[in-house]
Amino acid sequence: MSDIAVVLPDGSELSVPEDATVEDAAYEIGPGLGEDTIAGVVDGELVDKHAPVHDGARLEIVTDQSEEYLDVLRHSAAHVFAQALQRLHPDAKLAIGPPTDDGFYYDVTGVDLDESDFEELEAEMRDVIEADYDIVRRELPREEALAAFEDNPYKTEILHEEAAGEDPVSVYEQDDWRDLCKGPHVDSTGEIGAVKLMSISSAYWRGDEANDQLTRVYGTAFESESDLEEFLEMREEAKERDHRKIGREMDLFSVPDHSPGCVHFHPNGMTIRRELEEYIRGKNDDLGYDEVWTPELNKAELWKPTGHYDNFTANGEMFNWVQDDTEYGLKPMNCANHAHVYATSTHSYRDLPIRLSEFGTCYRNEQSGELSGLLRVRGFTQDDGHAFVRPDQIESEIRGTLGVIEEIYGDFGLEVIYKLETQGENAVGSDEVWDQATDALKAALEGEGLDYRIESEEAAFYGPKVGIDARDAIGREWTVGTVQLDFNIPRKLDLTYVGEDNEEHHPVMVHRALLGTFERFMGVIIEHFKGNFPLWLAPEQVRVLPISDDNLGYAHRVRNDLGDFRAEVEDRDMTIGRKIRAAHDDRVPYMIIVGGDEEETETVSVRDRFENEANDVDPGEFRAHLESEREEKRLEPDFVGAE
Amino acid sequence: MSDIAVVLPDGSELSVPEDATVEDAAYEIGPGLGEDTIAGVVDGELVDKHAPVHDGARLEIVTDQSEEYLDVLRHSAAHVFAQALQRLHPDAKLAIGPPTDDGFYYDVTGVDLDESDFEELEAEMRDVIEADYDIVRRELPREEALAAFEDNPYKTEILHEEAAGEDPVSVYEQDDWRDLCKGPHVDSTGEIGAVKLMSISSAYWRGDEANDQLTRVYGTAFESESDLEEFLEMREEAKERDHRKIGREMDLFSVPDHSPGCVHFHPNGMTIRRELEEYIRGKNDDLGYDEVWTPELNKAELWKPTGHYDNFTANGEMFNWVQDDTEYGLKPMNCANHAHVYATSTHSYRDLPIRLSEFGTCYRNEQSGELSGLLRVRGFTQDDGHAFVRPDQIESEIRGTLGVIEEIYGDFGLEVIYKLETQGENAVGSDEVWDQATDALKAALEGEGLDYRIESEEAAFYGPKVGIDARDAIGREWTVGTVQLDFNIPRKLDLTYVGEDNEEHHPVMVHRALLGTFERFMGVIIEHFKGNFPLWLAPEQVRVLPISDDNLGYAHRVRNDLGDFRAEVEDRDMTIGRKIRAAHDDRVPYMIIVGGDEEETETVSVRDRFENEANDVDPGEFRAHLESEREEKRLEPDFVGAE
Repeated sequence: MSDIAVVLPDGSELSVPEDATVEDAAYEIGPGLGEDTIAGVVDGELVDKHAPVHDGARLEIVTDQSEEYLDVLRHSAAHVFAQALQRLHPDAKLAIGPPTDDGFYYDVTGVDLDESDFEELEAEMRDVIEADYDIVRRELPREEALAAFEDNPYKTEILHEEAAGEDPVSVYEQDDWRDLCKGPHVDSTGEIGAVKLMSISSAYWRGDEANDQLTRVYGTAFESESDLEEFLEMREEAKERDHRKIGREMDLFSVPDHSPGCVHFHPNGMTIRRELEEYIRGKNDDLGYDEVWTPELNKAELWKPTGHYDNFTANGEMFNWVQDDTEYGLKPMNCANHAHVYATSTHSYRDLPIRLSEFGTCYRNEQSGELSGLLRVRGFTQDDGHAFVRPDQIESEIRGTLGVIEEIYGDFGLEVIYKLETQGENAVGSDEVWDQATDALKAALEGEGLDYRIESEEAAFYGPKVGIDARDAIGREWTVGTVQLDFNIPRKLDLTYVGEDNEEHHPVMVHRALLGTFERFMGVIIEHFKGNFPLWLAPEQVRVLPISDDNLGYAHRVRNDLGDFRAEVEDRDMTIGRKIRAAHDDRVPYMIIVGGDEEETETVSVRDRFENEANDVDPGEFRAHLESEREEKRLEPDFVGAE
Repeated sequence: MSDIAVVLPDGSELSVPEDATVEDAAYEIGPGLGEDTIAGVVDGELVDKHAPVHDGARLEIVTDQSEEYLDVLRHSAAHVFAQALQRLHPDAKLAIGPPTDDGFYYDVTGVDLDESDFEELEAEMRDVIEADYDIVRRELPREEALAAFEDNPYKTEILHEEAAGEDPVSVYEQDDWRDLCKGPHVDSTGEIGAVKLMSISSAYWRGDEANDQLTRVYGTAFESESDLEEFLEMREEAKERDHRKIGREMDLFSVPDHSPGCVHFHPNGMTIRRELEEYIRGKNDDLGYDEVWTPELNKAELWKPTGHYDNFTANGEMFNWVQDDTEYGLKPMNCANHAHVYATSTHSYRDLPIRLSEFGTCYRNEQSGELSGLLRVRGFTQDDGHAFVRPDQIESEIRGTLGVIEEIYGDFGLEVIYKLETQGENAVGSDEVWDQATDALKAALEGEGLDYRIESEEAAFYGPKVGIDARDAIGREWTVGTVQLDFNIPRKLDLTYVGEDNEEHHPVMVHRALLGTFERFMGVIIEHFKGNFPLWLAPEQVRVLPISDDNLGYAHRVRNDLGDFRAEVEDRDMTIGRKIRAAHDDRVPYMIIVGGDEEETETVSVRDRFENEANDVDPGEFRAHLESEREEKRLEPDFVGAE
């Protein structure tokens, strides 16, 4: 039997027999690893350790130290749930039970369940776990498998469809229970440290409304109880931070039914958006960008030469239509328009880089089921920019942009994670050009001394990119900005500059968005700050609370002395206690409280949203503090602490 | 025979016999007017003095003192042209020859013409004019008319279509020449003081490419040679001011083929647009507006309850299409979205006015043949605003807005003309409501002491408006801003506020745009300023010109001391004379010239675009002047004059 070669994560090749499984390959690497092997990742897909490898496969071995281990454990937890369910409800029929991003689910039928059943089910699951049954893979002859699952229409359908050609068929057993399953799984039920059932919803078999309605039970599982507790706390915290909830409470935005996925920014949300715009304009100025404006509506032909048209219409992601014999589209990206602005003039090598920025509104026809608040939208405004550079300017251009990105995220208290995303399946252009561009991005990242991780095959279709993730206050990572290097579009659109040699050359395009989109970035910072925006971003920065109506006049004088700060006088008829609570609820960073004493001494009392208070404050001193806090974009109100 | 009543311009009614013509009605008013009558305007349409009036008709009598007189004279000039043409080219066949905004045209066939023929044709026209032939209306029996024009397929078609039921048929004669024509005309060819043929293009009979191609000859005519000369000078001036030409010269914008009617603002144009945006933001703040952002893309259902959908789709003016079983549209106006933002909260009478502003980008599917530069577009961004007010707040709201409009146009050196535009044919809502709204606008205009003219039937479909025209540096009037009062949309969308009586009431909406759209307003001011923008708007405000490369270092120091002014150092290798010419060509308001003398004495020479020059200037003094010139938005550079 001839050998085949698999590619390991470090890029080295390993020679294995033609019929080798993941486990066999692990033993080839070393017997210790072979013994620890739980599963494998072949060409990016998590598979059972008994799955075969093929020549040229990219292979990672999964052990209980791998990131993927939790997925395997949760898949086993789904089996534990199913076993427990069928012990309590022998008539329950199982459909499918995969792991998810934060747990697992199992679709079942033939049983009436609601959340009040969770306690009993969880107790039964814990019994299965404590018994520490071995989880064993069996290969059943096809006929035997068909007989074993003949009472279950879903498993039978799977045997006739997904597993149509398979013989023998893979089945996993624990104790006296078994499931049709390709794995992978942990070795025994005892490895599951903690389980919890989370919720119930309904689902259709294969997601199709024409099929049977099923009951979907969501659960989660961890290696330990403390991991589970941390997860539940985080989940509670995330619920409190939900930008849709805070968006309603602070009246920041709405996404009405008549504009699915298209955000309406209300005055409070627009204040934040405008502050972000002005902030990014300043950064764009520093970077040497010139702002342009290009229309949302264009003829569809605009996007054909670059490949955007084919790419975006292939999965219906573009809004495009024919009217009066012309095919129109809404721009899904700004780059084609910017390339055309570049092309309206001739450029000399001395003029480069030419840098064009735009707060460009784009539309993409995302599935309506996936739309949510500010984070999954159809309409969005990118803080977009395209630099047209000479090849010798690439590294300094990318490094300049990366430096500013580091600065920007620091101003929001967000940590940056850099991902180098490489050539994917739908890539246009030659491999050589991709390698050249990818190497240039690496050099820039390393030149700036930035750590990065490589994410294979995740780039845009026209060039590799540095993806920017922001880690928020509770450790979640959000995809935000991007820096992409593109040798392809300038060639496809025949963009040129006149070189020192008097010949025409193609510039290289750097596509970049510092925040990404205003919609998404606002969603992220609403959750990151939990609505408690730094002074410079807060829709209402200061509220002046008169203790009684007698102090209204003085309150208005104090407010007027605050000049261009966004400050209101609370003139509703309420007790001072209720006024303070209302300002807290509205997340106003500072309250100024004025009563008879303050009016007499021409002072104010200052209270921040942490309930710190300072009395007998000189209004001028407070205003000077506000100015420096705003100017320096400090993250928290610190007047009282600074006293 | 019973009498009927016609309504005269002053609103009074005049009783006339049932079969009265315009001329008869004029004689009823007075025999002098009867004799002077040349034509009439019935219900807004210019008609022959022999045309009948009807009961309830709005009637204006046209004499040689009327604004419409020039249209009548130009219609007669078209006849003079046609007669001259047929004298020189008896085989020429006439199609139609109406007056236009600035002259007339005649569509002809059967003759080969180019502009080299104009001299001969004009000489022949002058002969016809000098002969001072009476222009006489005849009524021919239908059969006789059909025989008279049987050689002319166009006139024959008109007799069978537009004039299908007429017998007798109206024909105008002068000398031995006649034309099928409904008039009106002046009394004799001698009344035409001056004629000139302007250009030739081709046209299709009835504008349909499937029909005969015709030669269209454009000409113009005036009461006097001096009026003609003034017109030609103005035309030349307008050509030099053409915003498309200046836009190219200054690299302000482009309208590429792939985005018909949708402007791309280049960096220089975007600088002007951003200055205008910031300026209007300031005015909106003063007026108490809160800014919002609403999407271009919405479901078409959004515009159905208000009547916008029917109104805009009736003539194909909306971009709308079905995708994934949903009908989408691009917003043709912002008001429906703003109404929905209003409706997301409950409002008390104490909260009103609620004022929402947006730099809202809208799209309308204008005919592609009518698109031109910045003035006839498909995509445009309005400086839009909607105030939701109580009925008792209408007058003060409108007056506040009118006051700011007066201020704004003054800052651009533009004179404002106010037009009160009243209920038109497609109006929604009851006449009572329209009258109430129209009276409120009148009261506000009169309260502010503003002159206005009434333009009947020109309002938007939902309410009457004050249309704002700007009169530019060479006396042209441009439709720009608008203030509209709307009792209808709040009812149709059931917008409410809770009154002092604790009941729900409908607010009244004020729709207003101060500049109108950024596209159109920029087109207007490019032409108004001839590209010579005031300092605050100029894309490049100052250019520093070193006399030789030795002075480059000092030039950069001088530029740096200008801080946030948009200033560049001219570092190209050219003589100082060419550098000055280049700055003039680029319409830079100020040049700073620095050589050895200036460097030694730490002074600068300042030169403005009028070629005024000041030497030995202290850079700090000049900068202080620049700051005040920018701050006060002075229209012309005046540093040197101020010395």
